[in-house]
Amino acid sequence: MRIDNLQYCNWSEKVFRQMREGGVDAVHVTISYHENFRETVLNFEAWNRWFEHYPDLITKGLWASDIDRAKADGKIVIFFGFQNPSPIEDDIGLVEIVHTLGARFMQLTYNNQSLLATGCYEDDDTGITRMGRQVIKEMNRVGLVVDMSHSADRSTIEAADISERPIAITHANPHDWHPALRNKRDDVIRAVTSNGGMLGFSLYPHHLRGGTNCTLQSFCEAIARTAEQYGTDKIGIGSDLCQDQPDSVVEWMRVGRWSKEIDYGEGSAANPGFPPQPGWFRDNRDFGNIETGLRDTGMSEDEVAGIMGRNWYRFYAENFGPAS
Amino acid sequence: MRIDNLQYCNWSEKVFRQMREGGVDAVHVTISYHENFRETVLNFEAWNRWFEHYPDLITKGLWASDIDRAKADGKIVIFFGFQNPSPIEDDIGLVEIVHTLGARFMQLTYNNQSLLATGCYEDDDTGITRMGRQVIKEMNRVGLVVDMSHSADRSTIEAADISERPIAITHANPHDWHPALRNKRDDVIRAVTSNGGMLGFSLYPHHLRGGTNCTLQSFCEAIARTAEQYGTDKIGIGSDLCQDQPDSVVEWMRVGRWSKEIDYGEGSAANPGFPPQPGWFRDNRDFGNIETGLRDTGMSEDEVAGIMGRNWYRFYAENFGPAS
Repeated sequence: MRIDNLQYCNWSEKVFRQMREGGVDAVHVTISYHENFRETVLNFEAWNRWFEHYPDLITKGLWASDIDRAKADGKIVIFFGFQNPSPIEDDIGLVEIVHTLGARFMQLTYNNQSLLATGCYEDDDTGITRMGRQVIKEMNRVGLVVDMSHSADRSTIEAADISERPIAITHANPHDWHPALRNKRDDVIRAVTSNGGMLGFSLYPHHLRGGTNCTLQSFCEAIARTAEQYGTDKIGIGSDLCQDQPDSVVEWMRVGRWSKEIDYGEGSAANPGFPPQPGWFRDNRDFGNIETGLRDTGMSEDEVAGIMGRNWYRFYAENFGPAS
Repeated sequence: MRIDNLQYCNWSEKVFRQMREGGVDAVHVTISYHENFRETVLNFEAWNRWFEHYPDLITKGLWASDIDRAKADGKIVIFFGFQNPSPIEDDIGLVEIVHTLGARFMQLTYNNQSLLATGCYEDDDTGITRMGRQVIKEMNRVGLVVDMSHSADRSTIEAADISERPIAITHANPHDWHPALRNKRDDVIRAVTSNGGMLGFSLYPHHLRGGTNCTLQSFCEAIARTAEQYGTDKIGIGSDLCQDQPDSVVEWMRVGRWSKEIDYGEGSAANPGFPPQPGWFRDNRDFGNIETGLRDTGMSEDEVAGIMGRNWYRFYAENFGPAS
């Protein structure tokens, strides 16, 4: 079983067919960066059209068990998530509404301060806000997973502690492997994983040691070492694949509507666009390379299977439904 | 089994307990008169709160089978509907979105011309519009039932013909029993029922022969006669009960935001508010009276059971899911 727990591609039949070619069973796709509720609903609508147009290729995912059903039919299951809490605006009642529509992950922040928590690019991290505490409780109740990939350290550690259910860092790597601002320090990963949470390894070049030139071996050894440190069952993939997107999209991610000035995020004025993927992970077709690379580190078949998909499957099974 | 296919009460624990007292298993409740999409979502949210506050009394209904499940637990199932297409605004993609959120009936018009069809109070009825044809097709696809209770005759007959699945008049009575503008003529009822559709008998006094003074016998005999004419399996109850509502609510129904002048609808300047209910149907507690009244007309137990709930149950089972 192969699950990629974060993608934001420029969706097309080509991309869906490449998922199948790469043996991908399920993908958690971002459907909102800075969109408000109504705009996010338009994105749900756009996905409804994809499902209607390609019923033999893709199907909407609500529960882990949808993966079993779809696997039998040869379809890829698409789960939805938000990279920002903008879709719930200032209305806690929207948490259940977006869950009903299919959202399964929601970041509490995207780089900046939000109504709920502090983002990883702010100078000061004031932790989870008053509304943030209420929203985490409501997300726990309905089964919408807290994602802290783009959040600041204190906020992330507090979220892991406040949340009564496991949270996730869907797409980031360990800071001690590659000290990017978005990668996570030991105490952050520990807070998340020791509370049952998961870390999804990112393949976005700015998160990789050596960037585009990162080797498959270096990436897989980082996974193996991290699995050893925090538990093999706590690690998965969240590739952050942004295939076929024009650079205007990375600009939308970075500045949304919050600034009139350009912010280069993890890029720079000299390198403002999407960086090229490493040759061994061009797109969905290359998940087999990662599986091979993981085996080459000496991990067991069972550990490799967990990281390639079974760990996310179990996490989905335990965390997408209402609290029992 | 007792199903009331239309209510718009001022919801409270008292009303829910009265449903149970009256042996009501399921109710289709209106959650939008003139609300736009975002406002309708607030109404879904308000209902989520009711379900959270009274988990032992009520539960959200999506499918007919929810009634069986809830009956075993002693809960009343609440199904949602709109009396106007205002919640989908001018966006056909919202049809699937509101269905996912739980909407199961949508009127194409509420008294006035809409984007989709003509309402029963307009001078000229131009039938189903261009967008109306598209929306009916989409409603058919996802399983959102077309309701023509407040629509004009030609529009209703066209909707019954265009729709590839049965449609409903959820709450209205035969015009030849009581010639109110909102009650339906023979050719209209025939178009709906001959295409597999249903007529829900209303207990709103303006729809009753003699108004508030209508007798139980007159009401039940009208049902019996209508059942004989169009098929016993095509008739149910849609009481239009608006219990505990202030008169400001009937004004909202009648003028929404479309007029600065008051429109009295079925009332008058002398009688502008909600008329009092007949003594034999004060509220949900009195469904037993109707059942007794139907028996007294000489209908069989089987026919009575159909009208009191089984017919709507079958209709729900056949029409709330995606087209097969």
